Amino acid sequence: MSRGSGGGYDRHITIFSPEGRLYQVEYAFKAVKSSGLTSIAVRAKDTVVAITQKKVPDKLVDPSSVTHLFRIAKHLGVLVTGMIADAKAVVTKCREHAAEFRFTYGYEIPVDVLSRWLADQNQVYTQQAYMRPYGVSTIMVGIDEELGPQVFKCDPAGYFVGYYATSAGVKEQEANTHLEKKNKSTPFGEMDYDNAVQAAISALQSVLSEDFKARDVEVAVVSKSKFGETFTVLGNDEVEAHLTAIAERD
Amino acid sequence: MSRGSGGGYDRHITIFSPEGRLYQVEYAFKAVKSSGLTSIAVRAKDTVVAITQKKVPDKLVDPSSVTHLFRIAKHLGVLVTGMIADAKAVVTKCREHAAEFRFTYGYEIPVDVLSRWLADQNQVYTQQAYMRPYGVSTIMVGIDEELGPQVFKCDPAGYFVGYYATSAGVKEQEANTHLEKKNKSTPFGEMDYDNAVQAAISALQSVLSEDFKARDVEVAVVSKSKFGETFTVLGNDEVEAHLTAIAERD
Amino acid sequence: MSRGSGGGYDRHITIFSPEGRLYQVEYAFKAVKSSGLTSIAVRAKDTVVAITQKKVPDKLVDPSSVTHLFRIAKHLGVLVTGMIADAKAVVTKCREHAAEFRFTYGYEIPVDVLSRWLADQNQVYTQQAYMRPYGVSTIMVGIDEELGPQVFKCDPAGYFVGYYATSAGVKEQEANTHLEKKNKSTPFGEMDYDNAVQAAISALQSVLSEDFKARDVEVAVVSKSKFGETFTVLGNDEVEAHLTAIAERD
Amino acid sequence: MSRGSGGGYDRHITIFSPEGRLYQVEYAFKAVKSSGLTSIAVRAKDTVVAITQKKVPDKLVDPSSVTHLFRIAKHLGVLVTGMIADAKAVVTKCREHAAEFRFTYGYEIPVDVLSRWLADQNQVYTQQAYMRPYGVSTIMVGIDEELGPQVFKCDPAGYFVGYYATSAGVKEQEANTHLEKKNKSTPFGEMDYDNAVQAAISALQSVLSEDFKARDVEVAVVSKSKFGETFTVLGNDEVEAHLTAIAERD
Amino acid sequence: MSRGSGGGYDRHITIFSPEGRLYQVEYAFKAVKSSGLTSIAVRAKDTVVAITQKKVPDKLVDPSSVTHLFRIAKHLGVLVTGMIADAKAVVTKCREHAAEFRFTYGYEIPVDVLSRWLADQNQVYTQQAYMRPYGVSTIMVGIDEELGPQVFKCDPAGYFVGYYATSAGVKEQEANTHLEKKNKSTPFGEMDYDNAVQAAISALQSVLSEDFKARDVEVAVVSKSKFGETFTVLGNDEVEAHLTAIAERD
Amino acid sequence: MSRGSGGGYDRHITIFSPEGRLYQVEYAFKAVKSSGLTSIAVRAKDTVVAITQKKVPDKLVDPSSVTHLFRIAKHLGVLVTGMIADAKAVVTKCREHAAEFRFTYGYEIPVDVLSRWLADQNQVYTQQAYMRPYGVSTIMVGIDEELGPQVFKCDPAGYFVGYYATSAGVKEQEANTHLEKKNKSTPFGEMDYDNAVQAAISALQSVLSEDFKARDVEVAVVSKSKFGETFTVLGNDEVEAHLTAIAERD
Amino acid sequence: MSRGSGGGYDRHITIFSPEGRLYQVEYAFKAVKSSGLTSIAVRAKDTVVAITQKKVPDKLVDPSSVTHLFRIAKHLGVLVTGMIADAKAVVTKCREHAAEFRFTYGYEIPVDVLSRWLADQNQVYTQQAYMRPYGVSTIMVGIDEELGPQVFKCDPAGYFVGYYATSAGVKEQEANTHLEKKNKSTPFGEMDYDNAVQAAISALQSVLSEDFKARDVEVAVVSKSKFGETFTVLGNDEVEAHLTAIAERD
Repeated sequence: MSRGSGGGYDRHITIFSPEGRLYQVEYAFKAVKSSGLTSIAVRAKDTVVAITQKKVPDKLVDPSSVTHLFRIAKHLGVLVTGMIADAKAVVTKCREHAAEFRFTYGYEIPVDVLSRWLADQNQVYTQQAYMRPYGVSTIMVGIDEELGPQVFKCDPAGYFVGYYATSAGVKEQEANTHLEKKNKSTPFGEMDYDNAVQAAISALQSVLSEDFKARDVEVAVVSKSKFGETFTVLGNDEVEAHLTAIAERD
Repeated sequence: MSRGSGGGYDRHITIFSPEGRLYQVEYAFKAVKSSGLTSIAVRAKDTVVAITQKKVPDKLVDPSSVTHLFRIAKHLGVLVTGMIADAKAVVTKCREHAAEFRFTYGYEIPVDVLSRWLADQNQVYTQQAYMRPYGVSTIMVGIDEELGPQVFKCDPAGYFVGYYATSAGVKEQEANTHLEKKNKSTPFGEMDYDNAVQAAISALQSVLSEDFKARDVEVAVVSKSKFGETFTVLGNDEVEAHLTAIAERD
Repeated sequence: MSRGSGGGYDRHITIFSPEGRLYQVEYAFKAVKSSGLTSIAVRAKDTVVAITQKKVPDKLVDPSSVTHLFRIAKHLGVLVTGMIADAKAVVTKCREHAAEFRFTYGYEIPVDVLSRWLADQNQVYTQQAYMRPYGVSTIMVGIDEELGPQVFKCDPAGYFVGYYATSAGVKEQEANTHLEKKNKSTPFGEMDYDNAVQAAISALQSVLSEDFKARDVEVAVVSKSKFGETFTVLGNDEVEAHLTAIAERD
Repeated sequence: MSRGSGGGYDRHITIFSPEGRLYQVEYAFKAVKSSGLTSIAVRAKDTVVAITQKKVPDKLVDPSSVTHLFRIAKHLGVLVTGMIADAKAVVTKCREHAAEFRFTYGYEIPVDVLSRWLADQNQVYTQQAYMRPYGVSTIMVGIDEELGPQVFKCDPAGYFVGYYATSAGVKEQEANTHLEKKNKSTPFGEMDYDNAVQAAISALQSVLSEDFKARDVEVAVVSKSKFGETFTVLGNDEVEAHLTAIAERD
Repeated sequence: MSRGSGGGYDRHITIFSPEGRLYQVEYAFKAVKSSGLTSIAVRAKDTVVAITQKKVPDKLVDPSSVTHLFRIAKHLGVLVTGMIADAKAVVTKCREHAAEFRFTYGYEIPVDVLSRWLADQNQVYTQQAYMRPYGVSTIMVGIDEELGPQVFKCDPAGYFVGYYATSAGVKEQEANTHLEKKNKSTPFGEMDYDNAVQAAISALQSVLSEDFKARDVEVAVVSKSKFGETFTVLGNDEVEAHLTAIAERD
Repeated sequence: MSRGSGGGYDRHITIFSPEGRLYQVEYAFKAVKSSGLTSIAVRAKDTVVAITQKKVPDKLVDPSSVTHLFRIAKHLGVLVTGMIADAKAVVTKCREHAAEFRFTYGYEIPVDVLSRWLADQNQVYTQQAYMRPYGVSTIMVGIDEELGPQVFKCDPAGYFVGYYATSAGVKEQEANTHLEKKNKSTPFGEMDYDNAVQAAISALQSVLSEDFKARDVEVAVVSKSKFGETFTVLGNDEVEAHLTAIAERD
Repeated sequence: MSRGSGGGYDRHITIFSPEGRLYQVEYAFKAVKSSGLTSIAVRAKDTVVAITQKKVPDKLVDPSSVTHLFRIAKHLGVLVTGMIADAKAVVTKCREHAAEFRFTYGYEIPVDVLSRWLADQNQVYTQQAYMRPYGVSTIMVGIDEELGPQVFKCDPAGYFVGYYATSAGVKEQEANTHLEKKNKSTPFGEMDYDNAVQAAISALQSVLSEDFKARDVEVAVVSKSKFGETFTVLGNDEVEAHLTAIAERD
């Protein structure tokens, strides 16, 4: 992209270009892809699954401290893709808001309420002069007491929407195409726990065109039929079992 | 539009160009059209109807979470066209103000009072240095206890005015022409509930030159004769019924 | 006007050009004319009359919600010409100040006191860095308990002065010439209610070189002999009657 | 004056040019002359006289609302020349300060105290970043309980000094020359009330090379021998009488 | 790097470049290497070791006041590499936060909690307009009551992660390669106190290709088997002993 | 001086040029000389003398209101050279601080304490972004209870130092040379009241190469042997007497 | 240094250049040398000595008011080299902090605590947008109750470190070389009072290649064996005596 593309309108957060665009927000979307990772989330019958690549930058890093999956409340977690330092700031804000909500109202924050709140926060950063937008895409997964499994995605522009399945990161386009095809043949909404987890894993494998080891991915679930509806990151053993099941099925 | 068109006067919100124009505000109007949608609202005898296209960005999105129609109070809703993240911020502000009003004065906020308040908010963003204007056009629909059905439109410049029928978005010009012609032959103000809804739907069909499915549009009504004067988004069944009626009538 | 005319001194509100000019203020005066309307106010023996064009932007707009005449207090109203969103902000400020005054001192704010206050507000916007001036010209009309009928005009620079008759907007120059001639032959100050209203209407007709329908203009009066000295916008019937009287007289 | 004259140092209030000049302050002095008026003040034995041109911009303006002479306290008034909107802001500030002084200390503010205060205010505007200097020259006239008649002039730079006689505005140079010559032949300080008023009027006539009507000037006096030492704007009759006396004397 | 590389996007902290990069943050990483030092930290079975070069700028400097190793709490210290003035500011902030934590919760701050807090602080400096990021890389070493030895590294971007062993500074790349190879042959996690200290020292020797004297390095340890789990900077005698052991072993 | 001399580093108060210079402060020194006056102060055995030119800008100015000598406290006055509006602001600040000091501590502020305070104020204006430095040089003269006669000079950079004798303004260089020579032949510190005053006057005469009238200069003294150690501006009679004594002596 | 050297990165305090440098801080170091002075401090067995040149700008200046040596607390003083107005601001801040410390904790502030505090202050000025760094290098000398004699130097970047001996100013490089050589042959740490003072003086003489008079230098000491461990500026007599001793010894 040549320097003149934004015509100077991209140096300030708060101004529109003559075409009505906000360049800084568009550049923040690029920052999301800068991590080089791809993430997928799937909403099944009584389960939500979130999966992302786990790339440990070098072999000296303690793999247990590298994660893009964060528990926010008992039934609710986020999968953050993009600039990891921004991701942690987003997680801290979400946790504080969720705790405040529980303290004020006496019950856990619903998934859509937290999503709307985060999206509103993001929108403000596109409108005021003194801060840049966050360079992350945040997928919220959880189970709502009334509405059941829920997947929402909030972007740097402050937009959020619910999904049957979605993806984020460098291969977002390819992942979405794959998920749509899959959803057409076997709707995610009818899958049980095992099918959902395996569908998410094999979707990521197919998009990246590689076979994982369990240590190459992170998988988190919230399920009515497992773990007491709690946001749980799967252990390597369980991921391995699913990988084997996928390999055998194919 | 060439870069030099604003001559530098368009980089700052708070200054006039030598012709007395505020470029940033004009660019915000372009942002309204950037969503690619067209919206229409109609004020009938005892009913207001708001209709807009429902474009689900991809098939993975949960259609129930994609909407441009928002209930603000029992008798009052808004149809927001433009940058969707800004739209949600506007909706949040309106809901807060409506709730505050009800708390302070003990009755629901009248449609024109909320419109004036929102317009004043927008005007301030065109005059101060530290925020950009909202990139949305907000159509307020509701029923006033004294004045009956009401349709107002607030724009990014902070202007608002009442309408018999109006439109916003990418085909605003064509829609207004269509509505004016229609209003001349059969004034909207004399239509009953069914006629009003069907008039709004067929107006959108005619402007976009396509036949909808029920899932392609969102329709909301506030009607004295239906739903207890409550802001109600029509179900797909009812929309389908109206579409059939339109098709048969033609 | 070429770009270089302001030599860069016109990008900032708070600085003088080498000739001692404040360009931003001058551009705000252009914004007043951007509305394309012309307004006239006349101060007669016991009556003040304010008249402006009523251009409903399209036929779908509810004409009752389009107005440039605003009541501020019982005996006092304003006729605002220019950027309509700014106009509404000015009206809101004036109403608040008038209400505060009545609450503090126990009687209605005099016309000249409100004018001075508004002018002071405007002056500040030409001197501080963080806001632009309002793009409107405000004509205040009312009846003072001691001084009788009063007409003041406040401009974007913060200047205000009293008038026998005045005008604002795109044909201000022509209107003033017409009014001066008229005032010389028949001083406005000696006219009674009917003559004053008709003088104002025919002045606007003559400046615009067209014959109105009643719906093409808005007329407001404050009169000792009518409506109990209350700021009143005339109904279409009365305007029509005056138009007929004018036509018959000529 | 070419654009480069200030070399960019004139775009900011708070910085010195390499020659130690403050360009914005110098430009403010030009703004004083932009009004096209000339003012004169004279300090006589027991009287101060302030005179300025009264140019009613058009014949529709109520001449009684056009003035550059403002009473600040019983014994004290100002004659402000320059940007009229700034003038009114200065007057409002002076009145507030004078009232506060009287409230705090129980006696009227002395002329020199108010002058020093206003000058200090002006100085601050030349030193801080967020406001421009006032574009006016303020002549204070009044009678001090101890020091007798007093004339001070405060300029946009924040300088003030006392005068036997002084002038401001577009013909300041010529007026000062005339006054100096006059003061040499007949010192103002020895003139009684009538001589002082007529000296001021004929000085203005001579500088402008025209014969006034009473309505072309404004004259204010504070005199020990007249009006109870109160700041008084002379009526047209008295001005006319003085004009006749001048004409007869010549 | 040529001047145009950042295309102007690198002059402001808060904005993204068109590629979604934050240049100021990237430049801060270069500042880390500006000190010319290399640091290494190793996490062994019951011990953490931090080692860095000790370059006394000239011989007049009291060597005891030159250090990059700072005790934060009893069980916890930091090894800061980069701009030394920034380092001291970081240390002061960490100490205050650790003291506050102990005061509030009654026990010592865990290593990962302090790391997350510091990383969040750093992230904010990449997002707000009024401060630059710190030009330092902070390695935290300590023993957690539950998790045992811990090594975290926080960078200027606000990212932090746990390590088996890590390095920072001008030869970070070479040091990491060396440590990875070493960790593969003999995992650090299985080393006892003596082996761990000697592994850290010989790693630094090998990366810098020189043989140290004890006075050329600083070594700090926190060990379950030594010094009562307290952050301790080794004396020259002990370092010398280890150097001898290394030399004999080779 | 060509425009490029400051290379852009002179447009901001708070930044250093590559040579470590603060251009704005240097330009403020030029502003000191812009008044065209020269001032001299002398510290004698039991007396301090301050003398400056009195240039009444035109003959209409009341000479009694033109002064650069200001009493701050009983025993202490200042002689301010440079931009006169800034001078008055400095005087106001000094008076307030002196009064506050007396109120707080119960005795008059010592000369060096006030000098240090003013210098600190000036220094801040060279370091912060929002104000320019004062364009004046302030010479403080007074008698300290313990230290006797004192002369200090504070400059726009915030530097202050004590003097046997000093000068400021357009001929500062020449005056200093003259004073040094004089001080060598007859040290000021040994002069009595009459000799000191006459030495100061004849120094100014010699530097300006002209013979004064009493009305051409202002002379202030604080003396142990005269006027009860009070800051006193000499009357024209006494100055005349000294001028005669000088003329006779030569 | 050519103008382009900083490539624009040197106009703002808070940003890094692409090489990770902070230009404004580097320019502040140049400002330190702008005073043209050289200072030396030496830490002996039970004594610290600080010496600097005393250049009285002209012969009219009272030499007793020219100093770069400031007492901060009983046992502690500073030797400030660089922009003298900044120096005084630094001294004021240090004195306030030392007094506050004594008030809060009941004992004198240790030398290293004050040094750390000042360095932290300096660091903040390199990181925030609204102030420039101080243009001074501050050498703190004092005796610590536990650690004995102490010499610290704080620079504009916010770095501080302890020294056996150090120097600052225009000949810093040469002085350090001289001191290193001297320290090698006869360690300062073993010198008694007389030797230390004479070593400091002769070091300065040798660096500047000139023989002083006592009035050309300022010498301050804090010594366990003299003056009751109090920061003391030596009188001319004592300095003279040391100069004689040096001359005789050579």
